[in-house]
Amino acid sequence: MFQIEPIGYVRNTRSQLLDDDWDRVPARIELVESLPPEALEGLEEFSHAEIIYQFHRVADSAIERGARHPRGNPHWPRVGIFAQRAKDRPNRIGATIVEIKRRQGRVLEVAGLDAIDGTPVLDIKPVMAEFLPRTPVRQPDWSHELMQNYWNASGGS
Amino acid sequence: MFQIEPIGYVRNTRSQLLDDDWDRVPARIELVESLPPEALEGLEEFSHAEIIYQFHRVADSAIERGARHPRGNPHWPRVGIFAQRAKDRPNRIGATIVEIKRRQGRVLEVAGLDAIDGTPVLDIKPVMAEFLPRTPVRQPDWSHELMQNYWNASGGS
Repeated sequence: MFQIEPIGYVRNTRSQLLDDDWDRVPARIELVESLPPEALEGLEEFSHAEIIYQFHRVADSAIERGARHPRGNPHWPRVGIFAQRAKDRPNRIGATIVEIKRRQGRVLEVAGLDAIDGTPVLDIKPVMAEFLPRTPVRQPDWSHELMQNYWNASGGS
Repeated sequence: MFQIEPIGYVRNTRSQLLDDDWDRVPARIELVESLPPEALEGLEEFSHAEIIYQFHRVADSAIERGARHPRGNPHWPRVGIFAQRAKDRPNRIGATIVEIKRRQGRVLEVAGLDAIDGTPVLDIKPVMAEFLPRTPVRQPDWSHELMQNYWNASGGS
């Protein structure tokens, strides 16, 4: 067991657990007061950052440890929780690559963060091309279907 | 504060904290016995997975909370710990996209994991193209220089 302490919190206008249409929701990440603003120094030289956060509203009893149909949809195959990015997972960790808009002091403004208002942030990492997939990405059809409206509910990208 | 429990452990042949040449080190991730093998079911339909892990050998006293030169190199700018992917960071969380080689029961064989033998794994997520950067990636020169030998010490990629 490890202790993890939030390094900041998400501030935005979405407080309900909705699945889709995240591009509508610009967000700020505010570092906790115990961290100096210089912890973010230079991050604005990168176009993207990866935000590691906690799905803090998921109850212990909701956590899936085996397999299930993604979003409970019987048209998609029953797959393991580690073959999904669903929130109801052991340790409740989310990880999303966002676009960096602006940084001011302890505040980072981002686009494309799929986390609700008040979400505890556990880490922020700069995206380096060398850490992206170095071979072609292959994924099952159900995952493309699931993502259809994720960023933009009109189904575009 | 949150409690985090490892969902598995890294098994490979590297037990020293070395910075570079990670492509030489194929790895296995073994799920803990308390999780059923079906938690990994269907992951083999994806080419890549993101592994979230803990830099467990980093001492509390080594954690950087402000800014520093990456790898202590004065030729690179002094930047915040959240503008680096260094291990000496608050919460000691690592996140790396790996190539999936094979999955058998509770064991996932991967390539391109930059974690030493015995590293606790906190989460495994499938890589979906929709979660990769959707706009061009820009990053400072120092980060390309730092990554030069990271995967392959001969400087190739």
